[in-house]
Amino acid sequence: MGKYGEEGDKLLFKILNSGDFLAKADPHSLSEKNSVKITSQISEKGLRYDLTVPFARFVVQHQNEITFPFKRYQIQPVWRADRPQKGRYREFFQCDVDVVGSNSLMNEVELIQIVDDVYQALNIQVLVKMNNRKILSGIAEIIGAADKIVDITVAIDKLDKIGIEKVNEELEQKGLPREAVDQLQPIINLTGTNQEKIATLKTVFAHSEVGLKGVEEIETVFAYLASLDISTEVELDLTLARGLNYYTGAIFEVKALDVQIGSITGGGRYDDLTGIFGLKDVSGVGISFGADRIYDVMNQLDLYPKESIVSTQLLFVNFGEKEALYSLKNLQKIRKAGINAELYPDAAKMKKQMTYANKKAIAFVAMAGEDEMNQGKLTLKNMTTGEQQLLTVEEVINVIA
Amino acid sequence: MGKYGEEGDKLLFKILNSGDFLAKADPHSLSEKNSVKITSQISEKGLRYDLTVPFARFVVQHQNEITFPFKRYQIQPVWRADRPQKGRYREFFQCDVDVVGSNSLMNEVELIQIVDDVYQALNIQVLVKMNNRKILSGIAEIIGAADKIVDITVAIDKLDKIGIEKVNEELEQKGLPREAVDQLQPIINLTGTNQEKIATLKTVFAHSEVGLKGVEEIETVFAYLASLDISTEVELDLTLARGLNYYTGAIFEVKALDVQIGSITGGGRYDDLTGIFGLKDVSGVGISFGADRIYDVMNQLDLYPKESIVSTQLLFVNFGEKEALYSLKNLQKIRKAGINAELYPDAAKMKKQMTYANKKAIAFVAMAGEDEMNQGKLTLKNMTTGEQQLLTVEEVINVIA
Repeated sequence: MGKYGEEGDKLLFKILNSGDFLAKADPHSLSEKNSVKITSQISEKGLRYDLTVPFARFVVQHQNEITFPFKRYQIQPVWRADRPQKGRYREFFQCDVDVVGSNSLMNEVELIQIVDDVYQALNIQVLVKMNNRKILSGIAEIIGAADKIVDITVAIDKLDKIGIEKVNEELEQKGLPREAVDQLQPIINLTGTNQEKIATLKTVFAHSEVGLKGVEEIETVFAYLASLDISTEVELDLTLARGLNYYTGAIFEVKALDVQIGSITGGGRYDDLTGIFGLKDVSGVGISFGADRIYDVMNQLDLYPKESIVSTQLLFVNFGEKEALYSLKNLQKIRKAGINAELYPDAAKMKKQMTYANKKAIAFVAMAGEDEMNQGKLTLKNMTTGEQQLLTVEEVINVIA
Repeated sequence: MGKYGEEGDKLLFKILNSGDFLAKADPHSLSEKNSVKITSQISEKGLRYDLTVPFARFVVQHQNEITFPFKRYQIQPVWRADRPQKGRYREFFQCDVDVVGSNSLMNEVELIQIVDDVYQALNIQVLVKMNNRKILSGIAEIIGAADKIVDITVAIDKLDKIGIEKVNEELEQKGLPREAVDQLQPIINLTGTNQEKIATLKTVFAHSEVGLKGVEEIETVFAYLASLDISTEVELDLTLARGLNYYTGAIFEVKALDVQIGSITGGGRYDDLTGIFGLKDVSGVGISFGADRIYDVMNQLDLYPKESIVSTQLLFVNFGEKEALYSLKNLQKIRKAGINAELYPDAAKMKKQMTYANKKAIAFVAMAGEDEMNQGKLTLKNMTTGEQQLLTVEEVINVIA
C-alpha cells in the first residue's frame, strides 16, 4: 500500500488474515462499519499489483550481490481489483524487461529493439509511441504551471478517450488558468514527422532547460534507431503521458495497428524508483508486455499457427491387455524418437477409438494384433489417405518423423 | 470453500471484497467479533488451492467440447495459508498431469513412466511409493471398522512422522477397539518384496472383495511396469494413505532418495471427482509435481548445470557515441546468429566495463575504436586466455558459436 498512489491502493487485492482475524480489530471502527480503517487491521498481505515495485525492492535487497547495470526479465501474473471488461482483466500476465543502474539512452534503444523483435516474431503490426517526461515538464514550465505537471499529464493521457474539450475542462477544473490551457493547445495538437515536431519543440522550448533536455534525449534515441535495422515505426506522441507518476524520462507505449485494444506494451524511465526502498539515485528503464492482450490480438487476427494445437501424431489402438503391452513397448521407442504418440487406454470398440483419433486430428494410427505381434511389426494407417502398411517400429518412426 | 474439507477451508487464502466491504456485514456478528460468520460476508474470492478441483470444474464446464479420455498438463502457482517452513511454502508451483474419463490401469502405468522420465532428465534419484485405496478399504473391512476408513488412513499417513505407538493411540482415540488396532499391526508393518507383500495380502483378503480388487489392480500395474524399460523403483507401501479423501484407487508418492524432504510428487485415482460439479461417474487419475521442492532438491544436490546461469557470451565495450553505434550494428548481426551478446550501455572507464565482464563471467569481449571502424572489423578478446584477434563480424560469430 502506498506504492501505487491512491488509485493503486484501491485496485490492490487484499488478503484476509487467517484465523480469528477480528480478534484484534478495533470495536469502535467495527460498529461504525469503517471499512477503510478496518482494512489494515484484518489484512496484512496483498496480491502482486505489478512487477516493477517488487523488482525495485529486489534490487535494493540484493544491491551488494548484483552487478550493475543490472538487466532482467520477469514473467508473472499480477492482479487488479478492477471491473473486468474486454482487454481489462483482474488477473493477467506481465512480461517485464528492465535495466537498472545506467543512465544511457542506449537502453531505451535496446528496449525498442526488443519490441521490434517480439512483434515481428509474433507477426503483429505495431506502432511504438514515444514521449519524454521532461518534454511534458517543459510544457508545464513554459505555460507557467510547473506544479501542475501531474494534473496535466493525467488529463492529456485521456485525450484519445474523451477528446480535447473534456481535457481542457479537466485542466481548468484542476486550477489551470484559461490562458495556460490556451497555450497548451498547439503543443498537444502538434503534427508532422518526428523531425518536424522536434524542430518546433526546440523553438517552443527556447527558454525551458528541462524541455530542451527532453527533446535532446528523444532526438538521440531516434538517431540511433535510424541507423539500425528496425522495421517498427516509432512516433513521437506528445499526448502520451501514462498515468504512472514515477516516469522521469522516456515514456513508451505500443499499439496494435489491426485491432482495437488498449496499449499492449508500455514503459519508461524512472530515475528514482528504488528511492522508496531507501536506495537513492538509481535510474532504471523498462517495458512491460501485456501477455493477455497480446493473446487477444493474436486470437482476433487468427495468428496462432495451426501446428501449435496438434498434440498427438500417432495413436496406438488398444485391442486388449496382451496387445496393449506390446504396443506400450513400441510406444516407448517412438516417443524416444521425439514423436508425440499415445496408446488408447481402454480396449474400447474400434469405432470409439477411431472417433477419438479423428476428433483429435491424429494423422497416424498404429494397430498391433496377433499377426503383427508374431512378425514383430505394426500396421500403420495414414488417416488422411486411408493407406495401410505393415512396418517395423523403425520404419514407422521414419514415416512419421 | 467446502471442496477441500475442513482443513482445506482453513488453509485457503481469502480475498477481502473491494470497496466498502463492511456495508453489508451483519452488525451482530461484527460486535460479537465472530470471524467465522463474517468471513463469507466480506470475502467472495479465494486463492487457488490446488489444480485438481479447478480441473474438475473445467472438465464439467467443457464436457461437450472435450474428447474423452481427456489428458492435460497444467503448471500454475497455488497458495496455502500455512506456517511457512523448509519445504512448505505459502505460494508454490504445482505441475499436474491428469487423465479423465478412462478406468484403464494403463493410465497409472503411463503416469509412472512420466515420473521416471522427469526424474531421469533432472538426474534426481527417486523411489515411487504406491498403494491402493481399495487395499486400505479392505483392511478396514477385515478388522470390522469399514466406517473408520478415513480415520485409519489419516492416522497411518502419520506413521513415518510420529511412529507406530502414536498411530495406535490416535486410532484408539478415534474409537477403534483395541483388538481392531491389534489386528492392524502386522498389516501396517508388512515387509518383503512387492511380490511377497501381494502374496500375503491375497491371503489376508480372502474374504474382502474390495481388498482383493485393490491387490489385483496394483498387481496389474506392477506387471506392466516389469515389462517396460523403467529404471525407477516402485514400491508397494501400505502406510501410504495421503490426507486427501477423494482417492478411490491408486495412490502415488515420490520421495527423493538423497535429500531429507517431504514427497516431491504425489497423486492417485479419484473415481468421482467431477461429481461435486454435477457430472457423475467420471474417473480420473493424476499426479502433481511440486516444483519448489524439486528446486530445493536440485539446489541441495547442486544439480543445476553450470551453463544454465551463463547469460552473456560476448560484451561490446562502449567507447563513446560513435563507437557504440558501430558496435550496435554488429551486435544486431551477432544476436541474429543466436549468440547472447550485449553492449555496455555507458561509455564508462575501461576498468569498470572489464569488471562487469568478469563479474558476469562473460567469455569474450569485443572492442571497436577508430582503427576497427576504419577496417570494418572488431578486436575480439578471449577473457580466459587473454588472446586478442582482429576479426570481421562473421569471423567473430564463427569463433564464438
